Amino acid sequence: MSVERPDLLVVGSVAIDWIITPSAEREESVGGSATFFAMAAAYFASVRLVGVVGADFPQRTLADFRAAGVDAAGLRIVEDGLTFRWKGRYHENMNDRTTLETHLNVFESFVPSLPPGYESSEYLFLANIQPQLQLQVFERMVGPRLCGMDTMNLWIDVARDDLLRVIAKVDVLTINEEEARLLTGEHNLVKAARGIQRMGARNLVIKRGEYGALLFDESGDFFVAPALPLEEVIDPTGAGDSFAGGFMGYLARRGVPPSGASLRTAMIYGSVMASFCVEGFSYDRLRELDAAAIQARFRRFAQLTDFAHAHLLS
Amino acid sequence: MSVERPDLLVVGSVAIDWIITPSAEREESVGGSATFFAMAAAYFASVRLVGVVGADFPQRTLADFRAAGVDAAGLRIVEDGLTFRWKGRYHENMNDRTTLETHLNVFESFVPSLPPGYESSEYLFLANIQPQLQLQVFERMVGPRLCGMDTMNLWIDVARDDLLRVIAKVDVLTINEEEARLLTGEHNLVKAARGIQRMGARNLVIKRGEYGALLFDESGDFFVAPALPLEEVIDPTGAGDSFAGGFMGYLARRGVPPSGASLRTAMIYGSVMASFCVEGFSYDRLRELDAAAIQARFRRFAQLTDFAHAHLLS
Repeated sequence: MSVERPDLLVVGSVAIDWIITPSAEREESVGGSATFFAMAAAYFASVRLVGVVGADFPQRTLADFRAAGVDAAGLRIVEDGLTFRWKGRYHENMNDRTTLETHLNVFESFVPSLPPGYESSEYLFLANIQPQLQLQVFERMVGPRLCGMDTMNLWIDVARDDLLRVIAKVDVLTINEEEARLLTGEHNLVKAARGIQRMGARNLVIKRGEYGALLFDESGDFFVAPALPLEEVIDPTGAGDSFAGGFMGYLARRGVPPSGASLRTAMIYGSVMASFCVEGFSYDRLRELDAAAIQARFRRFAQLTDFAHAHLLS
Repeated sequence: MSVERPDLLVVGSVAIDWIITPSAEREESVGGSATFFAMAAAYFASVRLVGVVGADFPQRTLADFRAAGVDAAGLRIVEDGLTFRWKGRYHENMNDRTTLETHLNVFESFVPSLPPGYESSEYLFLANIQPQLQLQVFERMVGPRLCGMDTMNLWIDVARDDLLRVIAKVDVLTINEEEARLLTGEHNLVKAARGIQRMGARNLVIKRGEYGALLFDESGDFFVAPALPLEEVIDPTGAGDSFAGGFMGYLARRGVPPSGASLRTAMIYGSVMASFCVEGFSYDRLRELDAAAIQARFRRFAQLTDFAHAHLLS
């Protein structure tokens, strides 16, 4: 099966989170942008993960990566170090959160190193890390067919010039609503999107959490992907990275240069994987899926926005 | 043309607003729930408006009602009183707003009085007024084919019992996201919706402002209507009432008992009328439309969420 699957390289953070929500808590919850991305994308493509962890990183997750078909040869394990740890508390709306602790640990001196052959991966996703490192990885690649990236408010504040350099190079940028506003100083989201496209982001995905996501593609068109209204959200951590995993995974699996149509479908696969992610802590739900479950949820998304195109007034 | 149009009665507020946004201001901006509803619904149905204003109410709006085909025989003009006035300032996100002044004036003692024949209107919308008055109007009606209602946080706080009585009678309740949470004490929106349906609201529309709206219908199904991302929002006032006008207007025009399918299409017509509303102050934009403009925007909404239903993984 994996022989027909395109190679999709992700470089990003791998973390152990301590998650507190209004109704539950998990102390050792494996997370990080590359983890969620990989566990979501693995249903679509042959994922290669580059990151760094410490000696405290659970063996179980390495086994989960193997079982999911994620190649973790590029996950460096620093034997005398600790994994990046983040502790946070979600507010009752399950959207806002407060960071209680951040320990970068081995992630602080992370320099991505690509195992032999990784530089020719056909698809690349630069998950949320320092833009300077994203740039280094990008420049080591031998012309990927498609490159996506994510970022965060910190880099907009402290590494704006590097960030703008990466944005201008990649094919797709995924970014949060508030980050889009921060990056452009523009409150109106359409204007913010146009501003980011003028910075060189050809295709732009603006993530809005429980409100879904918007696509602004290079033709100037836009698309609204809904989020699935869920009766129970266990843990929103990793939703955006899972979205990116489904989105990039679909585009890689599809294999053709992305078009308006394939980007739209990719937005839905992204939303599908995000909707699974939040149904459990860590990658619990992402781990236990199969093609049938993913397709069933894809059909629910199709149902969600489907309506008859009546033309009563004409 | 009007002979084939069903009668749609709306009872609600008619106001003169003073609107301040980050980029503009209008001091005498005719508003109110019944005004926006009527100006939106008039493209679909033969609207009858019941409300109250004072001697300061502009003749121009009465002329606009006539031109739009809105029957304002039920709009009482109190010659020695002043119209309900509201002054508010929108924050930079154009979503949150601060009330600066409220003068109920003649609206304080408003008792809806239906002109002869109005009680047999086929369609009824109880726009946001005191639940006790909504109930009185409802009970005077001779079996409307469909009845919708709106409300606000104030009535949830001060007239909850009356409100629950109305909710249990009508076919459709439209309510804001925050109001749905306030009404049920439930943060999760799906749970809140189920709770409101258990109160007797057979069909429920939850309005989310710039994020669109959700429909929970009596079959247990739900539907997500996007909002149109707009490059320029002039004034959000009346968006929810315009939504209700397009929504109820479409259902009335269509004439059949509402089904899952017709409610979904009604959600889009509601979103279409809301998207026009916010493009201008007052009902400026709603006034100048025609069937072609409405259909063109309906097609934009259809485009907005359209995607190919690829089944790559099966």
